[in-house]
Amino acid sequence: MNGGEGPRSFYAQNSSLQRSAFEAQKRLIDEAIANNFDYTTITTSASNKNLITIADLGCSTGPNTFIAIHTITQAIKNHYYHHTHEPLSDHHQNLEFQVFFSDQVSNDFNTLFKNIPSNRSYFACGVPGNFRGRLFPKQSLHFVHSASALHWLSRVPKDIMDGSNCRAWNKGRIHHTDAPKEVGEAYEAQFKEDLVNFLNARAEEVVGNGLVALQIPTSPDVIVADDEEIHPARVFELLGSSLMDMARLGIMKEEKVDSFNLPIFYSPIKGVKAIVEENEYFSVEKMEALNLENFYSVPNVYTFVSLFRVVMEDLIKKHFGGAIVDELFDRFTQKVLEFPDIMNPKKLKIVMLFVLLKRKM
Amino acid sequence: MNGGEGPRSFYAQNSSLQRSAFEAQKRLIDEAIANNFDYTTITTSASNKNLITIADLGCSTGPNTFIAIHTITQAIKNHYYHHTHEPLSDHHQNLEFQVFFSDQVSNDFNTLFKNIPSNRSYFACGVPGNFRGRLFPKQSLHFVHSASALHWLSRVPKDIMDGSNCRAWNKGRIHHTDAPKEVGEAYEAQFKEDLVNFLNARAEEVVGNGLVALQIPTSPDVIVADDEEIHPARVFELLGSSLMDMARLGIMKEEKVDSFNLPIFYSPIKGVKAIVEENEYFSVEKMEALNLENFYSVPNVYTFVSLFRVVMEDLIKKHFGGAIVDELFDRFTQKVLEFPDIMNPKKLKIVMLFVLLKRKM
Repeated sequence: MNGGEGPRSFYAQNSSLQRSAFEAQKRLIDEAIANNFDYTTITTSASNKNLITIADLGCSTGPNTFIAIHTITQAIKNHYYHHTHEPLSDHHQNLEFQVFFSDQVSNDFNTLFKNIPSNRSYFACGVPGNFRGRLFPKQSLHFVHSASALHWLSRVPKDIMDGSNCRAWNKGRIHHTDAPKEVGEAYEAQFKEDLVNFLNARAEEVVGNGLVALQIPTSPDVIVADDEEIHPARVFELLGSSLMDMARLGIMKEEKVDSFNLPIFYSPIKGVKAIVEENEYFSVEKMEALNLENFYSVPNVYTFVSLFRVVMEDLIKKHFGGAIVDELFDRFTQKVLEFPDIMNPKKLKIVMLFVLLKRKM
Repeated sequence: MNGGEGPRSFYAQNSSLQRSAFEAQKRLIDEAIANNFDYTTITTSASNKNLITIADLGCSTGPNTFIAIHTITQAIKNHYYHHTHEPLSDHHQNLEFQVFFSDQVSNDFNTLFKNIPSNRSYFACGVPGNFRGRLFPKQSLHFVHSASALHWLSRVPKDIMDGSNCRAWNKGRIHHTDAPKEVGEAYEAQFKEDLVNFLNARAEEVVGNGLVALQIPTSPDVIVADDEEIHPARVFELLGSSLMDMARLGIMKEEKVDSFNLPIFYSPIKGVKAIVEENEYFSVEKMEALNLENFYSVPNVYTFVSLFRVVMEDLIKKHFGGAIVDELFDRFTQKVLEFPDIMNPKKLKIVMLFVLLKRKM
């Protein structure tokens, strides 16, 4: 992800899609904390009875992470107020928040730190690392949040890179749509392994009765096979066919495209449901699917393309080199223009799945 | 400070002076923990009885901070082992460390995070901010370390920037040596204010019986006024006179030099002693002055100059612009060559003062 502040950094400007989704889910966070936050989890710490620790995993460089943290801290303050019945001025003095902003080591933490609101009411830390493994001490977190991050896989599924495995090898494509079903199964298996690892790591880090609120971009369990519904991964199909066009013109070798696959999976909702319900450490307090169509209107093609370019660009550069990037996204833009329905939020079925988990005692 | 990885980043390569000082003080850290670390401070946390939190304040980008943290964690493990009498394999599994690497927001945390040893035995966080104020929740730290950072002032003393205050105005110089005594007093007052603020912030953050280990570059209380002893701030005098030479040649306005002053103070040892002894929250467990002459030999002039260039360059660029920097350090190199005694560690009296404080219960 291109997280810097240069002219190519569309992220901060173009994260409006994610942000509107988050704003819609402010209600869900507020309700989650009002109904499920256990105030006694913080008073059992002997040295500081008023400390609440919060982690945002996959925070990028802002501003969405700051909006999320603001919502969470405000909701906890309101809840604490209702719980303690102390006057507002007192609880403001007593309650302390420590917030851990976490993302991969390659994230631009310098920009993140410069962007942290100066009028924040919490102590801020950055935590570099892979959230499929442990990032925090045992039982050290009261609330974990992760938005628009868990659809990223920890790696491209191994099987689809293997030319000797005829069925699963993903030749001529960069994703699983329009591929043999073995390719989709390999993606699904990797998604499951990653989410299980994520949950098991959090199970160690979150205190008993602590909360984990996830927002995962998913796909509907059934896509109606007509012109009214488009699977979100179709976007990657357009990108893949742009690459194949360039390979046919000799701009790059076809093998280079064969060996490129996107580590992204929009799981069907039922896939996420099965994994979280199977986990022995958490109870599922809430699952709610938000169809993004209500939160944004058809963007213009340049906004739409830049939304994907900003998250894809580094991956593509790494594999193909920087020289082809501009042409690739020009071709991708053409393909989007030829298939404008893909920009229509009523048709492109990205479903933001909100999952609230509580750590069993 | 130039913390990047580019050709101008001498820091990692040239921090051998600081590092040798630290290695000499490994013994002091080991003794401090063996004699003063209170194991019961960690067992009073209800949710995680095996968590030890450590902060390094003024960490820069490594490697010195990683060496320091390694020494501290090893010493605590050894101490814990002696305390619990558990076999080594068990205590390794039980004990957890969370380490907070802290420096100013402008520090290059991206480089720091890339440099963190991959085989570390702790959870790592970065904390951006000013260590004269609060950075952590109340009573959340067991051990605080800060090396070669507290001689930086939070700002240039106000009075010396005021042209209407004839005595304290530091015209034609960039530091307090060879200046009216009012200038030195203004520096001393700012140093005191900063160290008091540092200690009061830590008093809130450190648990009862928790430790604060400081390594502060200082000057001897008395400098013998002959050729045998040179006050460390004389280095800045050479830099200031290089700037004044350039002003006289019309390369920059003299007023530009008048308005530039270095926010650094090598306090006399007795100054630090008075401040820490006056503080009501900490008991002084140990003070020991290490004369650096035992830890390094006369460097060549380029190494010597680059040691100062790396810490000064950003400040100078900010005030004078980048165009003058190369010429300035060429002139500075000439002045060092004309006064080679200043490179001699037996004569340049930088004293690394080790101070061990314990938070009163």
